[in-house]
Amino acid sequence: MRLHEIEFVDRLRRLAKPTGSAGSRKALRLRHGIGDDCAVLSANASTDLLITTDLFIEDVHFRRAWQSAHSVGHKVLTRGLSDIAAMGGSPRFAFLSLALPRATTQRWVDNFLDGFLALAKQHHVVLVGGDTGSSPHGFLADIIVVGEVLAGSAILRSGARAGDEIWVTGQLGGAAAELSRLRNNGKAAVKSSAKRRAGSNPYFYPQARVEIGASLRTAGVASAMMDISDGLSTDLLRLTQASDTGAIIEEAAIPRAAGATLSQALHGGDDFELLFTVRPGTTKKLSHVINNMPLTRIGTITKHRGLRLTRKGVERPLTVRGYQHF
Amino acid sequence: MRLHEIEFVDRLRRLAKPTGSAGSRKALRLRHGIGDDCAVLSANASTDLLITTDLFIEDVHFRRAWQSAHSVGHKVLTRGLSDIAAMGGSPRFAFLSLALPRATTQRWVDNFLDGFLALAKQHHVVLVGGDTGSSPHGFLADIIVVGEVLAGSAILRSGARAGDEIWVTGQLGGAAAELSRLRNNGKAAVKSSAKRRAGSNPYFYPQARVEIGASLRTAGVASAMMDISDGLSTDLLRLTQASDTGAIIEEAAIPRAAGATLSQALHGGDDFELLFTVRPGTTKKLSHVINNMPLTRIGTITKHRGLRLTRKGVERPLTVRGYQHF
Repeated sequence: MRLHEIEFVDRLRRLAKPTGSAGSRKALRLRHGIGDDCAVLSANASTDLLITTDLFIEDVHFRRAWQSAHSVGHKVLTRGLSDIAAMGGSPRFAFLSLALPRATTQRWVDNFLDGFLALAKQHHVVLVGGDTGSSPHGFLADIIVVGEVLAGSAILRSGARAGDEIWVTGQLGGAAAELSRLRNNGKAAVKSSAKRRAGSNPYFYPQARVEIGASLRTAGVASAMMDISDGLSTDLLRLTQASDTGAIIEEAAIPRAAGATLSQALHGGDDFELLFTVRPGTTKKLSHVINNMPLTRIGTITKHRGLRLTRKGVERPLTVRGYQHF
Repeated sequence: MRLHEIEFVDRLRRLAKPTGSAGSRKALRLRHGIGDDCAVLSANASTDLLITTDLFIEDVHFRRAWQSAHSVGHKVLTRGLSDIAAMGGSPRFAFLSLALPRATTQRWVDNFLDGFLALAKQHHVVLVGGDTGSSPHGFLADIIVVGEVLAGSAILRSGARAGDEIWVTGQLGGAAAELSRLRNNGKAAVKSSAKRRAGSNPYFYPQARVEIGASLRTAGVASAMMDISDGLSTDLLRLTQASDTGAIIEEAAIPRAAGATLSQALHGGDDFELLFTVRPGTTKKLSHVINNMPLTRIGTITKHRGLRLTRKGVERPLTVRGYQHF
């Protein structure tokens, strides 16, 4: 593809400017459009709507030979929930568009829906619409999640300032490490890995940090936030660009998942942990554990743009690497 | 595909029942979920939200050799706008998820966005989010449109009662007739057809009946409404099933587009006209022309389930036929 996502998003933001008219008579107002984890619409005096859409594409985001339909269903919804979590909101409703190859069996679809709806139930999210079509090649899902948040309180990517501390939830690189085991060990690894179900397998059953995101918002400590779905380096670059800042990360501080290399913790995606920033004066208000999940400070927002990594006082540029989902 | 859309929707409706908890503290309430043109959510005391999602898939809904990127962009948004029109609402915001083959050129994407955004501007709709991914095969778009409507006033498919008159906007079969010309005449027809741009080509530039849908709602005359995207026979069956009724259609009354056969008017899709029902006592309130568009009575809702067609007093079953989009 000649078109990179970041360019495309910039382009859309330029082209899709509100036309200005037909505004005032209407009830819904736009607070934030293209460029964050969710769009934010003002629904009434006390509530903002959060809306996010995410694609999940066979042979791009997952491999059918490796991943059960149940796990695909779980992961599709996780992508949407995680975007709501990243704004500090509560997910409420989901829409699911499915393009299904003609050879799709009823059993595969049933297992997919089981995985999807089990996670929906856990978060009290109701599936209220969608579309289905046939697909000439491979499975594709587009997940839309609608959430809500106290009016004006959604945490954006753009709120970070130089001097803010950079924090992450949980451990990083777990999904990438699991994926690497699958790649190296093939079928046997897939079988043993697939047995470890919800909550225990970071690649097949990642967990969206919905409660933690909401806690960080209500505590009033996060100045900027997003989820790490494409890897720390890629997503940190997005956050700093949205905030017109840079960042310096302490290599030794990065919390690595069991078995994860530094590279996997820095560049691996599919973890769905939260990346957030905290004003230096307000860190006393921050719990270092929420819902049994450790929160870790990994660096500092800088005025100087770009990303840097320090190790024993030696600084080097942090290169952003793309992440392959399988 | 072994899975038919109607079965799938029924299945989802059963499985996706609200869990009941986590309800009352929340601001957004669900009014109508799966099974209508849009989901309806209560946003505040005076406004309901309408949300719809629609897939548009290469080699399922369109053929790249026939259809310009500009027309694809127009038609993708038309699908979403038409669902909002079908509830009598006003479209406000759009989200666009695009799966793009690696070989997609910047020029194709630019033309696609031109077609999409020109129509968005015409309806004062703002593009506020979406997602992009690479596609292993062919282009795919999922369009999400968010609209609004006066609280409690959205017109559902399920409101028809035995005795209600059945009406349609405009003429039917125009898109199918154009498609048939393309099929029979090949490249030359495509070239001459593609020259006829917005507003004049029913297959490449169909028009969503947004103003007419809103007028019918505010006039208080439509008891049930939906758009005709998959053909009159298919969509009338859906409306009568949602209303637990049947219908009888007068063959001679069906308004046919220029050059359209009876079969094209009955079964052809992609017209995006509105199908609606009117209580017999309220038809005096109904204008027979709105925005220069004729409205035509074509039949009556019956208690007896199923669809029938009459011609010179002779009745026969109206068989539902699927529609091929190209």
